[in-house]
Amino acid sequence: MPIGPRDSSRTPRYAGIATFALLPRLEEVEHADIAVVGVPFDSGVSYRPGARFGPSHVRESSRLLRPYNPVQDILPFDRVQVADAGDIAVNPFSIDDAVREIEERADELTAGGTRLLTIGGDHTIALPLLRSVAKRHGPVAVVHFDAHLDTWDTYFDAPVTHGTPFRRASEEGLIDLTASLHVGIRGPLYDRDDLADDARLGFAIIASHEVERAGMPAALERMHARLGDRPVYVSVDIDVLDPAHAPGTGTPEAGGLTSRELLEFLRGLRRHRIVGADIVEVAPAYDHAQLTGIAASHVGYEILTSMVPPA
Amino acid sequence: MPIGPRDSSRTPRYAGIATFALLPRLEEVEHADIAVVGVPFDSGVSYRPGARFGPSHVRESSRLLRPYNPVQDILPFDRVQVADAGDIAVNPFSIDDAVREIEERADELTAGGTRLLTIGGDHTIALPLLRSVAKRHGPVAVVHFDAHLDTWDTYFDAPVTHGTPFRRASEEGLIDLTASLHVGIRGPLYDRDDLADDARLGFAIIASHEVERAGMPAALERMHARLGDRPVYVSVDIDVLDPAHAPGTGTPEAGGLTSRELLEFLRGLRRHRIVGADIVEVAPAYDHAQLTGIAASHVGYEILTSMVPPA
Amino acid sequence: MPIGPRDSSRTPRYAGIATFALLPRLEEVEHADIAVVGVPFDSGVSYRPGARFGPSHVRESSRLLRPYNPVQDILPFDRVQVADAGDIAVNPFSIDDAVREIEERADELTAGGTRLLTIGGDHTIALPLLRSVAKRHGPVAVVHFDAHLDTWDTYFDAPVTHGTPFRRASEEGLIDLTASLHVGIRGPLYDRDDLADDARLGFAIIASHEVERAGMPAALERMHARLGDRPVYVSVDIDVLDPAHAPGTGTPEAGGLTSRELLEFLRGLRRHRIVGADIVEVAPAYDHAQLTGIAASHVGYEILTSMVPPA
Amino acid sequence: MPIGPRDSSRTPRYAGIATFALLPRLEEVEHADIAVVGVPFDSGVSYRPGARFGPSHVRESSRLLRPYNPVQDILPFDRVQVADAGDIAVNPFSIDDAVREIEERADELTAGGTRLLTIGGDHTIALPLLRSVAKRHGPVAVVHFDAHLDTWDTYFDAPVTHGTPFRRASEEGLIDLTASLHVGIRGPLYDRDDLADDARLGFAIIASHEVERAGMPAALERMHARLGDRPVYVSVDIDVLDPAHAPGTGTPEAGGLTSRELLEFLRGLRRHRIVGADIVEVAPAYDHAQLTGIAASHVGYEILTSMVPPA
Amino acid sequence: MPIGPRDSSRTPRYAGIATFALLPRLEEVEHADIAVVGVPFDSGVSYRPGARFGPSHVRESSRLLRPYNPVQDILPFDRVQVADAGDIAVNPFSIDDAVREIEERADELTAGGTRLLTIGGDHTIALPLLRSVAKRHGPVAVVHFDAHLDTWDTYFDAPVTHGTPFRRASEEGLIDLTASLHVGIRGPLYDRDDLADDARLGFAIIASHEVERAGMPAALERMHARLGDRPVYVSVDIDVLDPAHAPGTGTPEAGGLTSRELLEFLRGLRRHRIVGADIVEVAPAYDHAQLTGIAASHVGYEILTSMVPPA
Amino acid sequence: MPIGPRDSSRTPRYAGIATFALLPRLEEVEHADIAVVGVPFDSGVSYRPGARFGPSHVRESSRLLRPYNPVQDILPFDRVQVADAGDIAVNPFSIDDAVREIEERADELTAGGTRLLTIGGDHTIALPLLRSVAKRHGPVAVVHFDAHLDTWDTYFDAPVTHGTPFRRASEEGLIDLTASLHVGIRGPLYDRDDLADDARLGFAIIASHEVERAGMPAALERMHARLGDRPVYVSVDIDVLDPAHAPGTGTPEAGGLTSRELLEFLRGLRRHRIVGADIVEVAPAYDHAQLTGIAASHVGYEILTSMVPPA
Repeated sequence: MPIGPRDSSRTPRYAGIATFALLPRLEEVEHADIAVVGVPFDSGVSYRPGARFGPSHVRESSRLLRPYNPVQDILPFDRVQVADAGDIAVNPFSIDDAVREIEERADELTAGGTRLLTIGGDHTIALPLLRSVAKRHGPVAVVHFDAHLDTWDTYFDAPVTHGTPFRRASEEGLIDLTASLHVGIRGPLYDRDDLADDARLGFAIIASHEVERAGMPAALERMHARLGDRPVYVSVDIDVLDPAHAPGTGTPEAGGLTSRELLEFLRGLRRHRIVGADIVEVAPAYDHAQLTGIAASHVGYEILTSMVPPA
Repeated sequence: MPIGPRDSSRTPRYAGIATFALLPRLEEVEHADIAVVGVPFDSGVSYRPGARFGPSHVRESSRLLRPYNPVQDILPFDRVQVADAGDIAVNPFSIDDAVREIEERADELTAGGTRLLTIGGDHTIALPLLRSVAKRHGPVAVVHFDAHLDTWDTYFDAPVTHGTPFRRASEEGLIDLTASLHVGIRGPLYDRDDLADDARLGFAIIASHEVERAGMPAALERMHARLGDRPVYVSVDIDVLDPAHAPGTGTPEAGGLTSRELLEFLRGLRRHRIVGADIVEVAPAYDHAQLTGIAASHVGYEILTSMVPPA
Repeated sequence: MPIGPRDSSRTPRYAGIATFALLPRLEEVEHADIAVVGVPFDSGVSYRPGARFGPSHVRESSRLLRPYNPVQDILPFDRVQVADAGDIAVNPFSIDDAVREIEERADELTAGGTRLLTIGGDHTIALPLLRSVAKRHGPVAVVHFDAHLDTWDTYFDAPVTHGTPFRRASEEGLIDLTASLHVGIRGPLYDRDDLADDARLGFAIIASHEVERAGMPAALERMHARLGDRPVYVSVDIDVLDPAHAPGTGTPEAGGLTSRELLEFLRGLRRHRIVGADIVEVAPAYDHAQLTGIAASHVGYEILTSMVPPA
Repeated sequence: MPIGPRDSSRTPRYAGIATFALLPRLEEVEHADIAVVGVPFDSGVSYRPGARFGPSHVRESSRLLRPYNPVQDILPFDRVQVADAGDIAVNPFSIDDAVREIEERADELTAGGTRLLTIGGDHTIALPLLRSVAKRHGPVAVVHFDAHLDTWDTYFDAPVTHGTPFRRASEEGLIDLTASLHVGIRGPLYDRDDLADDARLGFAIIASHEVERAGMPAALERMHARLGDRPVYVSVDIDVLDPAHAPGTGTPEAGGLTSRELLEFLRGLRRHRIVGADIVEVAPAYDHAQLTGIAASHVGYEILTSMVPPA
Repeated sequence: MPIGPRDSSRTPRYAGIATFALLPRLEEVEHADIAVVGVPFDSGVSYRPGARFGPSHVRESSRLLRPYNPVQDILPFDRVQVADAGDIAVNPFSIDDAVREIEERADELTAGGTRLLTIGGDHTIALPLLRSVAKRHGPVAVVHFDAHLDTWDTYFDAPVTHGTPFRRASEEGLIDLTASLHVGIRGPLYDRDDLADDARLGFAIIASHEVERAGMPAALERMHARLGDRPVYVSVDIDVLDPAHAPGTGTPEAGGLTSRELLEFLRGLRRHRIVGADIVEVAPAYDHAQLTGIAASHVGYEILTSMVPPA
Repeated sequence: MPIGPRDSSRTPRYAGIATFALLPRLEEVEHADIAVVGVPFDSGVSYRPGARFGPSHVRESSRLLRPYNPVQDILPFDRVQVADAGDIAVNPFSIDDAVREIEERADELTAGGTRLLTIGGDHTIALPLLRSVAKRHGPVAVVHFDAHLDTWDTYFDAPVTHGTPFRRASEEGLIDLTASLHVGIRGPLYDRDDLADDARLGFAIIASHEVERAGMPAALERMHARLGDRPVYVSVDIDVLDPAHAPGTGTPEAGGLTSRELLEFLRGLRRHRIVGADIVEVAPAYDHAQLTGIAASHVGYEILTSMVPPA
């Protein structure tokens, strides 16, 4: 029987040092099926920095998560061992070093079959995480929730930043070009070519305004159809939510998803096979009353539940 | 003719000492059909406290309410006398004393047939309010807007807290087991049994994700069907709203109702007979720009309108 | 070829002194097809002041706007010359002087055929802007996005305030009585007569709760039908958005539009001929993390795109 | 025996509708020796508005004030009857009307010998208050705590704004030119002439940097020497405090007094005969955690104590 | 050689799960000379609650503390083993239970000679901590930094709240009546008797205004003289700081100490023998940018340094 | 006659696009004696990032600065031409590139004898600025206001970060080892060696607690004695202020200077010959109500005044 979260009938939820969902630390379990790990790195951002404080903020905001997911009707922490692996500490002054360190540590953590739910940090970290995932699983279907495409090429000559992970990943053969997908895209782009490039790099798009126009059921169907039966990597940039729902982020764009819609998408992932996931771009200095942190912690909880294998 | 709100063409809305909607104080009217009363009590909370400042915050946030409700096409304050009864001051160090004092004062206030719209305070206060209501009306249909069931049993051995009012009320025979209803439920629970217990205690559920999936019209129909023609007690925990709409609360959960949806539900109550109501869990220290306070004040205004008898 | 925004591949978006969308200043271009101009004036407000800081706040919040609008599939700044004309500096101590100064400066700016997108400031400024527009175009169809009617008569005997611009404009023959329209109306009014007056003054209404009930497609159809083929003036009070989406405003009302819905309405305006526009009532002191400023900047961007003539 | 504040051993301080220091309302007492009255008016400001919300904010921030002043060793509310007279509601759209209304209402309130402690509102209100005071007491020694001189002439041709009350008062013969004094002055001025004009208008200056250099005892001595035995009017612009101590104000300047220093000055006034007082320029939208409101409420409490006659 | 804080040259200070000063957890060391322990309890407050979130907030705010104290010229963590003992989780619904649990856990933690630096929580917790300390050390000299006396008797009939710990402690013989001392007292009291009672209960006072008037050197001398050579218990209510320096607290009073003054007092304690200490009343919901949390963490660091025995 | 700030009697201070102190832009003047230039760069920080938004925040916060400095009795903008040179836009992803670009641009701007007042950005930028200054003036006396020494060696192997500029500058022979000085130092260090290294690198120290103990006059004397008659470079890390006065910064430490003290130090610099200056580490995301921005703008104004040559 897995070790579950701290017993909140004996310790109030606000007490004690926070791990994600008050789960045990990695060193307190023999083996983790899923590890939640932080990557406090934001040196790849082009606008507001601060996501380096994301992991601690999301942990503090996750104290209210309870063990039973009623919509999915699952007690995820009874079914698999989930543990908090702490943070991957990386060099803030070298993107190259940081990216290498993240990949190495992800390889170590997943060596025994553990899957990762990573809490960023900025979106740069998705690249080394995909490199690590692809070593085990081959090219994966990426389902990417974001206001932005993140398939740009370079910025100030830097090839690896928070605007480029999925271009690099596509170029490196890490993603399945027939099954990857952005959800929630909105806001102005640089040029028409951005969309053409993006398609060539392997992504379909369910834009935010299409969710408004076509409705959630149609959007969910499109997601299922695109992902098919591929192994799936889930990447959630919290700015996929409207700034009303997630003010604490680095490049907010009006017109986004509600948290209720995003949770519905994530519940839908339960019928797919998730091999890894990340939640990025939570910038606490811009948050209010843990609004963004709570949204991110629910996102993590719903992903974790969707990662539990069928009984 | 009832005494209405202060004349805002002669006194700017930001001037003067605030009562709810700038209505007269209870001592300024001969008889109130409906009294708005505050209960600044938050010693029953299990997470973020602060709802003791709820009544003054909601009053300050209600200065913009005007006399005519265009959606319901009613001038509520022309039709019934509504007055602000101030606060029920209770002991912050003893839940038992506080609960007794609330019940006693509610009995006094309603002795002449006055109905109450109570502004909390945490959800603990619903129990003594239901005790008082049931003395006059027998078991009532509770329509309970909340992210949480609030039918848990005990917490740290305490039987009466903000997580338990509806279990205690059900056990005490205060509610109609065939007609009570939660709306907006979401977020993780402790266990599957929570739902089984809740049903046994007399509640049906319209969960937040069901509003997303089935749509508002269907949800409204379910509410009407459940409430039937029973006398209705309305209890609104402001956390039924998404944290984007109500950050200023104690146990926020992502994925909630919009304020527009909640107001639609409350307008729907007009066809039912409301015998009492409360709005709880507004915690101003976590609010921003009166966002939550304004939502709560509109909730109160819509409930008041729905409490006006047919012409 | 028009001069576009500053090249953000060479200057980070957070660098440099902000113009709207980092566009050139008016003095840097030969002729502007559209000028974005601020009016930092809030002496006409009846509740929370502060919109005098609106123009600088919206400019700072617009740094992330990029040149290509993917939903409308247009590069607006390639098609027409848009420039930032700075602010119209007006007397804060005399509404009469201010209104006259705004009209004069608007006349000057539009003398060569330039259309204006004005950033307020409070809603008082719509009156002199409409006076200026009507000189060139005759009575215009006003499409007015707002929580409030703004067709009240006087307040403290003042005929020209932020609550009265459209009554004055109607009385002065500036608007087309058969084609004007409020969108997003909600919240309590003073009396039933408010609605009767408003209709007589030339406005139809798509209320916020009607958007909830009838859905966006129906609402868009009603807008198109009402506007017909008239020249259109667009006036967006940012409080048309729910306070969750726009806390930084002066008279917030719960139950409003989402930013996604508002952007959809504005995209719909592309099929109409826009002769001028304003965005008002952004009060930065009540904003958080530029939430409201970003919404306003996207509103401006979408309006600008809709102002671009067909290719 | 005067009626004192509400009994906080029976009603928690956070409960009930707030008056200043939880004192009785004016209508609840037969005669008030001192009345605390709000003037929610800010149409005279040249930079950040918002002081119209000052009176309600200071009242809410004054709930913690207790009856015994240990430094002055006086129970002020036992010695004189102090009551809260509510607000003087004035026209926000006409400085002239507002100024006239304030003077009229001040005359009424003081007709029976009541002295006023007025809570603004912006500094414009000091002019009508001085007009009223001078009718009873002749020219008074003004001791004016402020970062700014407020003896400028006109601004945008307006003679009566928050930057001019003491020039107008001096010109009208309301102040004693030999005994008036600014304390806490700092920050840049327009020109050297500002100081020359100011001296000619009757003011000596104890600048903020002089408090730093000469120390508080010397500054207090200078204040006593200047005021002599004249009847004294005390005017406290909360921006006399450093922005660290009072962020919630309209024209903050670095380098100000600490609240501890200001309270010492005010205690020193006990040896003078205070005929009236005001506290102005509290702009709550810029406050944090009632920091400024609490400072203002302590300022009011210390002034009230200093107004109590010798036993 | 004691185990010191995490090596910040390899792990950035913002990374990893926070303990106080990034020190090891208690279970990671063989024996702790000093344990830092949290008590997240705030059910004893009479005004703003929220100090239950104090321990996690202070830990997060302590990430910048480095190992060498240059003013005291000591590397405290090289000289004694300091460890973070986590939180004492107590019942939020029963002051009696909570107080008993705190005392029991304090007894356990100190059984091997470990001294405690406790982070609250509200001031109620000082009573059980003093009970535990007095068992080992007999009556101690309490040096109590606070705006308030905290020697009141009962409030709403409750004998043990955050306003009463030192009266109860005095009555129970836990403190040395000849050597105890309040520092920083200010703000209004209930009555003259408060001071008489307080003196009878064993406390001298260095009031905040006396620090202003007499200067820090004199104040330090008075502290040394009062404490003599008694074993000293240090209790720091963070509201001893001016609200400018510590807005995040429950009962703020203007006119307080600066953080620089408070740190000087605490450095002065090095010449005394400290047997225990607490830092209480940090209420994060009212904090801004960790202002209060950082002040509290420096307070803790300076106390820890002063607890290191002479070399 | 130099071109001065915009005429605020015709344009309200809140109107128009902000330059520093509303001064002319560099391109609007023929020659600038002093240029204010921003460097929005924060990739060298080890804790909270965000100073990239410093320049625009300080500009917005400087709108209230008026032309006459009464304490120094100088109209600085009448005496020398000061202009706003906009920002030096640099690569956020490469410290090396950024440092080179800053130096090059500083060389260009100062080629004609213009002196710079630079607004950061993080403290990394002091190194290229000193490199540029030393080319013209040889080794300069650095007077460095900061909580931290900033003479550390490397961090994560990076030699050039915000913690190292003065070590690198000393090693490169850019500073006068006999005349440089830190003011305001406080907070824990890594080790005793930090102080030994620092002294060897050429710095004397006036620590914050020494200002408390010895008083400002003594501290000013020490500053004058140390600087002697050397050309002086002034570097102000805004965290030299107590967090109460400057919450908006990256590595706050309790116990700092007041803004009044800092301004006194800067006025003292008038008797020295200032060859360049910077103000760094303003991180707006952590600021409140422009508290930090206003302090920084006054710091800049006082430095500018002190840079004006004797008449």
